[in-house]
Amino acid sequence: MASARRILLLSSSTVHGSAYLEYAATFIKDFLKKSDVKKILFVPYALKDHNDYTNKVRGPLKELGYAVEGIHEAPNAIEAIKSAEAIYIGGGNTFQLLKTLYDLNLIQPIQDRVLKDGIPYIGSSAGSNVATASINTTNDMPIVWPPTLTALGLVPFNINPHYIDFDPDSKHKGETREERLSQYHEIPGTPPVLGLREGAILHVEGNVAKIIGVFGAKLFKPGCEPKEYNVGDDVSFLL
Amino acid sequence: MASARRILLLSSSTVHGSAYLEYAATFIKDFLKKSDVKKILFVPYALKDHNDYTNKVRGPLKELGYAVEGIHEAPNAIEAIKSAEAIYIGGGNTFQLLKTLYDLNLIQPIQDRVLKDGIPYIGSSAGSNVATASINTTNDMPIVWPPTLTALGLVPFNINPHYIDFDPDSKHKGETREERLSQYHEIPGTPPVLGLREGAILHVEGNVAKIIGVFGAKLFKPGCEPKEYNVGDDVSFLL
Ligand SMILES: [Ca+2]
Ligand SMILES: [Ca+2]
Repeated sequence: MASARRILLLSSSTVHGSAYLEYAATFIKDFLKKSDVKKILFVPYALKDHNDYTNKVRGPLKELGYAVEGIHEAPNAIEAIKSAEAIYIGGGNTFQLLKTLYDLNLIQPIQDRVLKDGIPYIGSSAGSNVATASINTTNDMPIVWPPTLTALGLVPFNINPHYIDFDPDSKHKGETREERLSQYHEIPGTPPVLGLREGAILHVEGNVAKIIGVFGAKLFKPGCEPKEYNVGDDVSFLL
Repeated sequence: MASARRILLLSSSTVHGSAYLEYAATFIKDFLKKSDVKKILFVPYALKDHNDYTNKVRGPLKELGYAVEGIHEAPNAIEAIKSAEAIYIGGGNTFQLLKTLYDLNLIQPIQDRVLKDGIPYIGSSAGSNVATASINTTNDMPIVWPPTLTALGLVPFNINPHYIDFDPDSKHKGETREERLSQYHEIPGTPPVLGLREGAILHVEGNVAKIIGVFGAKLFKPGCEPKEYNVGDDVSFLL
């Protein structure tokens, strides 16, 4: 795949006990510094109220030194992608997000900017799901129906954000996360799934991928035992 | 809607600390007695291994006095529906279940048998989701892609099975169930959603609907505060 890509995929925008993006601040700054980013194009489509959401994100990112433009504020969304210095797609409902990206014909423009032009892409939760091969491994409710679950394909595998281990004390009878992922992998041809714990970040530079952030990840592959990866581990073999 | 229908929708096949269908046994027997059912057609499509699943279900239902035929064992699935005395659709993955019902052209035959002929329909978890207006409010992972989320429509609203209240001690940052359902209801034209707690059962006879089982339900409607319904409560207004 394209080696220009620069990608930072967060499991979650927040970890317990800290403010929006607080745990990720130094990772985001380090990541964006390399591309000399001053202004971030924020994509709020995963939530219903785009103004509200953009305003919530603007403060924390301004404190880090970035101006934020909401893509919905731009006269033309495709043009906004074409001229963006960096793209940040926030969390919310993954189906709603992907449907909107398709409805507004933004898939190809984002792919071009990230894979060809090498502008930085940051995703959080749903924004990380849509960066991968497909959203088949979202945790979200299918509140709307996108034309396909195939996503941006900026990386060739899937992510499960907010990954959480089985709680042995739980009395709940719904499937565990691990059961859900193993049911996915019963289907022929499904890609590996990287379960990112809240606080885990996947950092991709060209053909090098690493787990950074404050917590690790668990990798699921068809027919294999799940395998743990810790902060600092190289997972470039997934690319 | 059709007044012939006889429907029993379980949130879950099991509650904590009891065996498969144990908590529901007397409710199932009472329900099937009225239609003098001897043999149940079991639909195992929500899980991958149809034989395994049918064998797991056969024992507990035999103990209650019913023979069980797996629909996948029948020479022709449509004919099996047409001649069924009663249908039981088990839980698993709701997307996989609904996709298979569409792939095998079973939607209309099931609707006809339940809404016109009045044969008893029992659903559990995913099998309850597919009985409703749509599967937009499943908790499952979209591991496959059905042609639509529109479901059997045996009742005109949606169900959220395994409904669980927010745990104030949780450190997890994924959306609560209530947040997910309220995001669904931000979309214009969405139907009410009955959140069935594990152990709750919705019993429909023609145009009368009641909460039975061992736990209650919480009803979500666009623009309204959620409302609790207890075991024994009449919810016929939903029909
Ligand atoms: Ca989400
Ligand atoms: Ca399920």
